Amino acid sequence: MKKLLNNVENVVSEMLKGVEYANPRVYKVEDFNVIARKEKSKKVALVSGGGAGHEPAHAGFVGKGMLDAAVSGEVFTSPTPDQVLKAIQVSDNGEGVLLIIKNYTGDVMNFEMAKEMAAMEDIAVEQVVVDDDIAVKNSLYTVGRRGVAGTVLVHKIAGAAAEKGYTLAQVKSVAEKVITNVKTLGMSLGGCTVPASGKVSFELAGDEIEMGLGIHGEPGTHREKLQSAHEHVKYMLTELLKESEIKDEEVVVLVNGLGATTLMELNIINKEVNEQLQAHGVKIYRSLVGNYMTSLEMPGFSISILKLDQETKELFDEPTFTTLF
Amino acid sequence: MKKLLNNVENVVSEMLKGVEYANPRVYKVEDFNVIARKEKSKKVALVSGGGAGHEPAHAGFVGKGMLDAAVSGEVFTSPTPDQVLKAIQVSDNGEGVLLIIKNYTGDVMNFEMAKEMAAMEDIAVEQVVVDDDIAVKNSLYTVGRRGVAGTVLVHKIAGAAAEKGYTLAQVKSVAEKVITNVKTLGMSLGGCTVPASGKVSFELAGDEIEMGLGIHGEPGTHREKLQSAHEHVKYMLTELLKESEIKDEEVVVLVNGLGATTLMELNIINKEVNEQLQAHGVKIYRSLVGNYMTSLEMPGFSISILKLDQETKELFDEPTFTTLF
Repeated sequence: MKKLLNNVENVVSEMLKGVEYANPRVYKVEDFNVIARKEKSKKVALVSGGGAGHEPAHAGFVGKGMLDAAVSGEVFTSPTPDQVLKAIQVSDNGEGVLLIIKNYTGDVMNFEMAKEMAAMEDIAVEQVVVDDDIAVKNSLYTVGRRGVAGTVLVHKIAGAAAEKGYTLAQVKSVAEKVITNVKTLGMSLGGCTVPASGKVSFELAGDEIEMGLGIHGEPGTHREKLQSAHEHVKYMLTELLKESEIKDEEVVVLVNGLGATTLMELNIINKEVNEQLQAHGVKIYRSLVGNYMTSLEMPGFSISILKLDQETKELFDEPTFTTLF
Repeated sequence: MKKLLNNVENVVSEMLKGVEYANPRVYKVEDFNVIARKEKSKKVALVSGGGAGHEPAHAGFVGKGMLDAAVSGEVFTSPTPDQVLKAIQVSDNGEGVLLIIKNYTGDVMNFEMAKEMAAMEDIAVEQVVVDDDIAVKNSLYTVGRRGVAGTVLVHKIAGAAAEKGYTLAQVKSVAEKVITNVKTLGMSLGGCTVPASGKVSFELAGDEIEMGLGIHGEPGTHREKLQSAHEHVKYMLTELLKESEIKDEEVVVLVNGLGATTLMELNIINKEVNEQLQAHGVKIYRSLVGNYMTSLEMPGFSISILKLDQETKELFDEPTFTTLF
């Protein structure tokens, strides 16, 4: 394994300390793998998280307009209930907490357990479960569809609703609307190496890709030969449009890199996504391109399509203070 | 070569079209590999650029508070003078244009030629040359020191000065001050593949790194065994502090990923950089962590240290509208 690390056992806590040093608006909760906002305000708090290895998700999305706290498990491993509870405790502002959970059996179980523990402390907690990955139903680690990059759009829009003073029930309702309307499909060109294992998760031939792979390397729908960006995008948009039932609604598109794919390639993919969607008659309100939810240094990408309505469009446009220069 | 592309000959123009689709505040100049701001204002214009393959540099830094236009050559190849001239023409607002050039012989030559061509059109053009890489003096492609990730800090601070209404001479002067005060050192864990060649640029053994490597894979100072993040950072900071002559000034630190290194590792490196600089008595004003100037999908990173004074500190804090959510 060729990685820049100190001690394999401390990767998550050391990484989160680095996040704290890089962002003056957040802090790492001592003795916990939780990143939280320094500034508190009277509003519904949003907490998300999951296994590490998907950076910048979720710690990078803590800030005004998005999350109030993010909790990180070990790499590709659900955070424990006590860690989630801590994130709930430090972020609650008296208006309740919404948990945004990616659909993995371990995450759902541990976040729900933390929710019950918080209830005993009289903190109002609600939850939503994101299941945007259209590739497969039921999977390694998951009953139902997996939660992947579309989760970032749930953070963004529910985060805006919370800033605008929506109640807990209202924030939950808008988050659920986004979850219903966001669909994602990914593909991979190769594996990645979890530090604790030290070995590449899986191998693909030199000219082979896997379609529909999960963000922890869970199996996708099929393997095939590497084709042009145009051809792969064409297949993926066809699958996504089948699931999206778009009539004349505008959409937000997210071209998300899984880690080692160049921004050059992601932008070429974005050109294809935009031009092919236009040819399908789909109106694109905004395109996002970059590494939002990665799988360590996996080469590959996903495309998410979010169907907007007036409310989610206006919320999407609210300012976000998470990425800093 | 396992990359998501269409036609190897069109990678740059297709990528820039993707940049345009992703950022409603910029456009790709038709028939040129130039990204420019849509909004014009009465101010000194900033133009930068160079070979492609360093994304998000430089097109990703076009926007209010940074660049007015970015010109892209082919991958790792200087843009031609007519392309640079076009970037000057579309960005000039009547207050003159500052060219921010990374120190590579081809870049300097072609930007200077464009400057002379612009002079014939009565556009006032000045230039600065960034040479922040302390690794080697003279190199493949370069007389003197190379220009690398510190260039982004020149964009940021000179960009703020231009927005505040500094004259061309004043913007040039502050850019030169940043160049004098910024030092960078990088290291690599492996090569990268230029699409037109299709082959990995160089090979390192499984446990080997190269210190001081350039962003096009130009030789560094030495190869050695991969060590802990702590040990590599220790060596690099020692070298950087020798060159920086920091007394009691505050610094901005930039931990820049070269492409395929995870944000997990970059944040662990940032933790080391912060804690070790603090132990050296250096006061850190801000730390930036991410992929700012890459070498395609090269694994590795660089550390830049910028020594601040009151003027550059205030300019650094001015808002920037380049990365969009």
